[in-house]
Amino acid sequence: MNQTKNSEFLIINGPNLNMLGTREPEIYGSLTLAEIKNYTEKSLEQDNVKLEWYQSNIEGEIVTKIQEASQKNYKALIINPGAYSHTSVAIFDALCLMKCPVIEVHISNTHRREEFRQTKLTAKASTIIMEGLGKIAYLTAVKSQLF
Amino acid sequence: MNQTKNSEFLIINGPNLNMLGTREPEIYGSLTLAEIKNYTEKSLEQDNVKLEWYQSNIEGEIVTKIQEASQKNYKALIINPGAYSHTSVAIFDALCLMKCPVIEVHISNTHRREEFRQTKLTAKASTIIMEGLGKIAYLTAVKSQLF
Amino acid sequence: MNQTKNSEFLIINGPNLNMLGTREPEIYGSLTLAEIKNYTEKSLEQDNVKLEWYQSNIEGEIVTKIQEASQKNYKALIINPGAYSHTSVAIFDALCLMKCPVIEVHISNTHRREEFRQTKLTAKASTIIMEGLGKIAYLTAVKSQLF
Amino acid sequence: MNQTKNSEFLIINGPNLNMLGTREPEIYGSLTLAEIKNYTEKSLEQDNVKLEWYQSNIEGEIVTKIQEASQKNYKALIINPGAYSHTSVAIFDALCLMKCPVIEVHISNTHRREEFRQTKLTAKASTIIMEGLGKIAYLTAVKSQLF
Amino acid sequence: MNQTKNSEFLIINGPNLNMLGTREPEIYGSLTLAEIKNYTEKSLEQDNVKLEWYQSNIEGEIVTKIQEASQKNYKALIINPGAYSHTSVAIFDALCLMKCPVIEVHISNTHRREEFRQTKLTAKASTIIMEGLGKIAYLTAVKSQLF
Amino acid sequence: MNQTKNSEFLIINGPNLNMLGTREPEIYGSLTLAEIKNYTEKSLEQDNVKLEWYQSNIEGEIVTKIQEASQKNYKALIINPGAYSHTSVAIFDALCLMKCPVIEVHISNTHRREEFRQTKLTAKASTIIMEGLGKIAYLTAVKSQLF
Amino acid sequence: MNQTKNSEFLIINGPNLNMLGTREPEIYGSLTLAEIKNYTEKSLEQDNVKLEWYQSNIEGEIVTKIQEASQKNYKALIINPGAYSHTSVAIFDALCLMKCPVIEVHISNTHRREEFRQTKLTAKASTIIMEGLGKIAYLTAVKSQLF
Amino acid sequence: MNQTKNSEFLIINGPNLNMLGTREPEIYGSLTLAEIKNYTEKSLEQDNVKLEWYQSNIEGEIVTKIQEASQKNYKALIINPGAYSHTSVAIFDALCLMKCPVIEVHISNTHRREEFRQTKLTAKASTIIMEGLGKIAYLTAVKSQLF
Amino acid sequence: MNQTKNSEFLIINGPNLNMLGTREPEIYGSLTLAEIKNYTEKSLEQDNVKLEWYQSNIEGEIVTKIQEASQKNYKALIINPGAYSHTSVAIFDALCLMKCPVIEVHISNTHRREEFRQTKLTAKASTIIMEGLGKIAYLTAVKSQLF
Amino acid sequence: MNQTKNSEFLIINGPNLNMLGTREPEIYGSLTLAEIKNYTEKSLEQDNVKLEWYQSNIEGEIVTKIQEASQKNYKALIINPGAYSHTSVAIFDALCLMKCPVIEVHISNTHRREEFRQTKLTAKASTIIMEGLGKIAYLTAVKSQLF
Amino acid sequence: MNQTKNSEFLIINGPNLNMLGTREPEIYGSLTLAEIKNYTEKSLEQDNVKLEWYQSNIEGEIVTKIQEASQKNYKALIINPGAYSHTSVAIFDALCLMKCPVIEVHISNTHRREEFRQTKLTAKASTIIMEGLGKIAYLTAVKSQLF
Amino acid sequence: MNQTKNSEFLIINGPNLNMLGTREPEIYGSLTLAEIKNYTEKSLEQDNVKLEWYQSNIEGEIVTKIQEASQKNYKALIINPGAYSHTSVAIFDALCLMKCPVIEVHISNTHRREEFRQTKLTAKASTIIMEGLGKIAYLTAVKSQLF
Repeated sequence: MNQTKNSEFLIINGPNLNMLGTREPEIYGSLTLAEIKNYTEKSLEQDNVKLEWYQSNIEGEIVTKIQEASQKNYKALIINPGAYSHTSVAIFDALCLMKCPVIEVHISNTHRREEFRQTKLTAKASTIIMEGLGKIAYLTAVKSQLF
Repeated sequence: MNQTKNSEFLIINGPNLNMLGTREPEIYGSLTLAEIKNYTEKSLEQDNVKLEWYQSNIEGEIVTKIQEASQKNYKALIINPGAYSHTSVAIFDALCLMKCPVIEVHISNTHRREEFRQTKLTAKASTIIMEGLGKIAYLTAVKSQLF
Repeated sequence: MNQTKNSEFLIINGPNLNMLGTREPEIYGSLTLAEIKNYTEKSLEQDNVKLEWYQSNIEGEIVTKIQEASQKNYKALIINPGAYSHTSVAIFDALCLMKCPVIEVHISNTHRREEFRQTKLTAKASTIIMEGLGKIAYLTAVKSQLF
Repeated sequence: MNQTKNSEFLIINGPNLNMLGTREPEIYGSLTLAEIKNYTEKSLEQDNVKLEWYQSNIEGEIVTKIQEASQKNYKALIINPGAYSHTSVAIFDALCLMKCPVIEVHISNTHRREEFRQTKLTAKASTIIMEGLGKIAYLTAVKSQLF
Repeated sequence: MNQTKNSEFLIINGPNLNMLGTREPEIYGSLTLAEIKNYTEKSLEQDNVKLEWYQSNIEGEIVTKIQEASQKNYKALIINPGAYSHTSVAIFDALCLMKCPVIEVHISNTHRREEFRQTKLTAKASTIIMEGLGKIAYLTAVKSQLF
Repeated sequence: MNQTKNSEFLIINGPNLNMLGTREPEIYGSLTLAEIKNYTEKSLEQDNVKLEWYQSNIEGEIVTKIQEASQKNYKALIINPGAYSHTSVAIFDALCLMKCPVIEVHISNTHRREEFRQTKLTAKASTIIMEGLGKIAYLTAVKSQLF
Repeated sequence: MNQTKNSEFLIINGPNLNMLGTREPEIYGSLTLAEIKNYTEKSLEQDNVKLEWYQSNIEGEIVTKIQEASQKNYKALIINPGAYSHTSVAIFDALCLMKCPVIEVHISNTHRREEFRQTKLTAKASTIIMEGLGKIAYLTAVKSQLF
Repeated sequence: MNQTKNSEFLIINGPNLNMLGTREPEIYGSLTLAEIKNYTEKSLEQDNVKLEWYQSNIEGEIVTKIQEASQKNYKALIINPGAYSHTSVAIFDALCLMKCPVIEVHISNTHRREEFRQTKLTAKASTIIMEGLGKIAYLTAVKSQLF
Repeated sequence: MNQTKNSEFLIINGPNLNMLGTREPEIYGSLTLAEIKNYTEKSLEQDNVKLEWYQSNIEGEIVTKIQEASQKNYKALIINPGAYSHTSVAIFDALCLMKCPVIEVHISNTHRREEFRQTKLTAKASTIIMEGLGKIAYLTAVKSQLF
Repeated sequence: MNQTKNSEFLIINGPNLNMLGTREPEIYGSLTLAEIKNYTEKSLEQDNVKLEWYQSNIEGEIVTKIQEASQKNYKALIINPGAYSHTSVAIFDALCLMKCPVIEVHISNTHRREEFRQTKLTAKASTIIMEGLGKIAYLTAVKSQLF
Repeated sequence: MNQTKNSEFLIINGPNLNMLGTREPEIYGSLTLAEIKNYTEKSLEQDNVKLEWYQSNIEGEIVTKIQEASQKNYKALIINPGAYSHTSVAIFDALCLMKCPVIEVHISNTHRREEFRQTKLTAKASTIIMEGLGKIAYLTAVKSQLF
Repeated sequence: MNQTKNSEFLIINGPNLNMLGTREPEIYGSLTLAEIKNYTEKSLEQDNVKLEWYQSNIEGEIVTKIQEASQKNYKALIINPGAYSHTSVAIFDALCLMKCPVIEVHISNTHRREEFRQTKLTAKASTIIMEGLGKIAYLTAVKSQLF
């Protein structure tokens, strides 16, 4: 019997997350984004979900992607805005367009880091925040919508 | 007798303004940007003006568009920087290149909104500011240069 | 055929606006308030509007005038609170009484001026803000309600 | 036996309190200042007190009234400085002249309201503060001096 | 004829209020909390009210007491949070549970005191605030609910 | 075959979390803490974990509980510090004693709430933060350690 | 030989300076404003100057007086703005109209006083500031223009 | 000849000081509080003093202990408020009750540590502060009162 | 003997630096970026270096360029982030990827300019900062790595 | 009849005041300190005063000079602390030693200048402040003590 | 048997400490620095220590003295930086050179004093801080190194 | 043929730079100031320049040295103000006297260091800033004036 993937998630990654694995591995871990993607999808094999992955370093492209998502029927939008989390009113505004839950994730716990990371803009437009989960960040975000 | 459109305006719209109509209509109204464009141009039919409309979600593209405008002979630059109004030194710098008047418009009155919208960067480089005019924002901006 | 002036506007000017023309003309222009009044009314001759002009240097008198206005049926209240724009909670409170649109105008663009002019109190109680329009400030404010 | 009213209170109301009943009734209640006056005096009928009521929208007139009060023998000065509570060093200075108790009252609880109402100037010169009592504000203030 | 005490008030006193009389008497007066209790109850003899007095130095115990109160039918909760007034988000949260009026009282006028007493947390969750009433603080609070 | 519960979690709930269900249900949901406990444990039935639940309104008792936990071999400490999250250096210090992961959870997304909830103290001592998950907060926290 | 008074000074006193002598004499001294006026004029008998004294408690009246002064040929404007020194942008703006020197005086040294007196607005528009001179404040100000 | 211990000191330790030895030994050293107690008392054997040691993690219990101490005749109160040093107005208030010297000690030099430890509340109510003395903190505090 | 250019430098220019020569020449000088490039390369003719020039107005493109550079073996990365210097956490994060020296240059001395240019983000991730060197900025940066 | 100079003044000038005449003459005037000294003394010829002039660029030497002055019987200490006015707690402390009046003078009106000149430290320890008097600063200061 | 003084301490006193005894004796006590020196040395007669005393009002001389000390083998450096404690980055930098313990002492408890004394710069470079010990400050500092 | 050194530079080093080599070598490198001087001069042998080196720990002496320099014809003033860079308005004022370029250098990149080093005072009076160049700081500064 064919079973269609009926829970669709969009996963947006912001600037420098394409450098995971290389970038300060003592903070972000040694897996690349591709490896985390594989790990996440493999871990979700039983869960009948479809994940759409997107990454951009450009604030405005992320805004556009969120706008497009707001026109579709995702189960949830998972976003790791990276640095734009602290500076982008534009992404905040775009996230306000979403009708499904927005789950903001961060690989590291930003509360333990530099002062300028303590400004939280996008978090004010998100439904759920998860920080410090490392490689299981995306997996946990998806799972939380399947309980 | 043919009369050429001799007053040319460039109208730049920043991030998420392409979502007008959908985006928080209780704040921004229910007209789309295209509808506002039509309304504005129809209202100006008698005024012999030519409007050039531009929208981008990308800060740097807006910078580039302003730079190009600074090389041309617009009667005025009308800009709704949206969220970048509060965060973009780059657009501030680009606006300083303009020799014609710069009219910054906002659909809503940002003074009544979130704390982070109280940082006004681009307004320091503009000649004129108009906030809270809703669908007549662009029309009023153009008209103000025709009195 | 007699046509009554059926759109009535109250225009309140705050402290030192009675000194227009004399006061820092490089910022505020060289027209007196009376000349701006004449210019505005002449420009509106076709528009069948009635303008009521009021000026006071006294915060509390402006409060009283707004209170009275709140009991009448103006099409819009146009107010240039001058310096009180940055310091008056009392005028803020009075403006909250208004049911018609409140259009706050400033001759200059205060965003380009001293730090203490960056505190915006009355703007939080206004519907529309227009800054930097010079002598066409009042004209543009009225016109915006006639489109 | 005739009994003279021997406890005299001066009750000063600041800007916009003459609009009670009309002004944001969900915050300030639906009674007018005159109705509150009546209610207060009626409730105090047994208490042999004389209340002098004064209202002004003008900061400087309130200063003058307090100065005059400081020369007389009131049992207490009850003052609702309204908006001037947050901005007036002049009223603060005048209140410092008083030798009888100064009871500052506010109809609403200002701690629950806008950020700019969190600056408390006159409260630093008052003996007693009461906020949030609604129509019984003046009554409670008087009563507190009769226990 | 037996008349039951039908207006019940809970009076919570926070840290160091058990030291009244001893503690900085020039600020707080020379009566002990027990003496103020007696004075208050005696003054209310005619008023058919029942007062329940509670004091604790422990923030969490006060939270618990308020939680319990929120399950009962008090006419009003009178609370002098003492020092916790300036630091306790936990008491703020507990007070938000209350459905009857919350009257926050302070023996002294804290606006005249140290800078760190100018942070007002619990006041944001209270209905009514009274400061500077000295020994009549609790009496006035109760009386205000009987007018 | 007997299988022992070999993954032990300590779940600490801070002040007012014992009032879940009653407390602002539009923010915190309508389930009581007991109901969430049941829901969580039932959802984890397959997972062979043992949860120890603890709640206190008293900051110092929570400190003591964390100290005791630091001497044991929990797989993770899950803590919802409630209000103390924003004010308690003492809990911060206690959390620094932990050697297993510390997962701080909040029922609501505190980034969207009052200014005083934007001070994040305990988060600086936690490994992982999860906010806004509502009734699945504890479940997601446990699950995240089982992937 | 008749000698006309040819050096004319306007001396403006702001709110509560009409209460000198009564008001906190340990700070402001025990002389009334009238006595200081007499003292000042007597001390200047040899100096062939004419002093015009003005006092108002009303910010806007002081603005008006300064505006009028700006149209005349005073040798200098001496102003003790009192409390308005710290709060009045309107008087700042009016002072900018003056072409003769503006000498701001304060009876006390405000640097030694409350925090809210450390905001200096009018001083930014004055030519000369003198603080702490007590009864000789006005005399010194006049004399300084006669050296 | 019997010699009574005639110099009595109360030594109060705040939250997490019961974890000395375990807690961040690179900051606080490797001795437990019991070992420091032994070391202190042994070092004072010649000095004819009696030390009373008290530790609590609960802010309000510390307040109570200080209140009790304020009723007795200690030579000095030595207090290490730990984390409450930075957050507790309640302990500040309690310390103000003391008539004997209050010596606040900290094992580490808090000036070198996190930003949130730079708020010093209890220090404003102490007579003497000593920071950074490690295991000799209590010994030095006692000794300082014996010179 | 052929000598290959063995010292390779990447020179990244941020927003509006493509407008050098036109843009506020009193601040930035009258040379275009192309002219500065020519001048720099000509001045380095003896130095056997290869310069790679890159300019973008788009924050995210600069991030991407830096990421690519972090994978190569440049002798140094020279970056003039322009306005993004004050606002971009994303570029900060990208610069942290670099293993060779990062030399941040600014044509003007930003310390002498607007308040909003005093926020220095990228400088925290750079090895060397040089400001105010005008047309010799890039030359000096390169030369500094050749001494 | 010989009349001894019986009113002695010490005049201390801080850093860079030895450069008067050269230093930003549009702000400080074109007279050297020596010329101002001559002018001051000549203007005081009738006044039977003795002026002692001292200048140093070194904060600690100025402290020492004030200490010495505090041991003598000057009629007044006149000090132009220059830049140290904004940064020196040490000079503040030294000025607190003085028993005669301390008159702080500034050539320019520092309220109109850079933000960092708005920190006023020494003014808090002075009796009298005079700013903006230019070359008559010292003369006016002396004269004020002779009225 | 000759016993050499084998524990050498350098004691540096900053500005105005040479005025002890004269300077605000209600804060600093009535002993001169010489008397405190005698008292300290006499109290240490049994302790076989050698104290080197140094005082300067000049920040840079104190820096130099600390630099010299950093080249020698003191058991500890005891420093009372006086006012420079709050303003001197230069002394902070010099103290970082020290390898022996640095004990910063203050005669008074600066936490109870003016706001500008709450900036603690040198304390961040010290090992131990002691405040409020009065005449026993230096004695206690030395003794603490002999336990 | 004799060639005179015709480009003269004054190089001023502020406090603690005489300790280079010893002082935190991981930040400042292991070369002494004398070694850097030798290295710099040797590297400039071909350049026909004369360097005058000056170092002082005393703020006022540096002020004096700059004043003297302002009277001479240096090609440029190179200054490493060290700690005074962050605290000295006096040096700022002195630097404003200079007519030749002022090049401020720092051995380390202060943007990466303590918060109190983020206050930049002297940089506002400099022409050029260079930070983080280590031993080549002075060499690069000189060279930049020879291109």
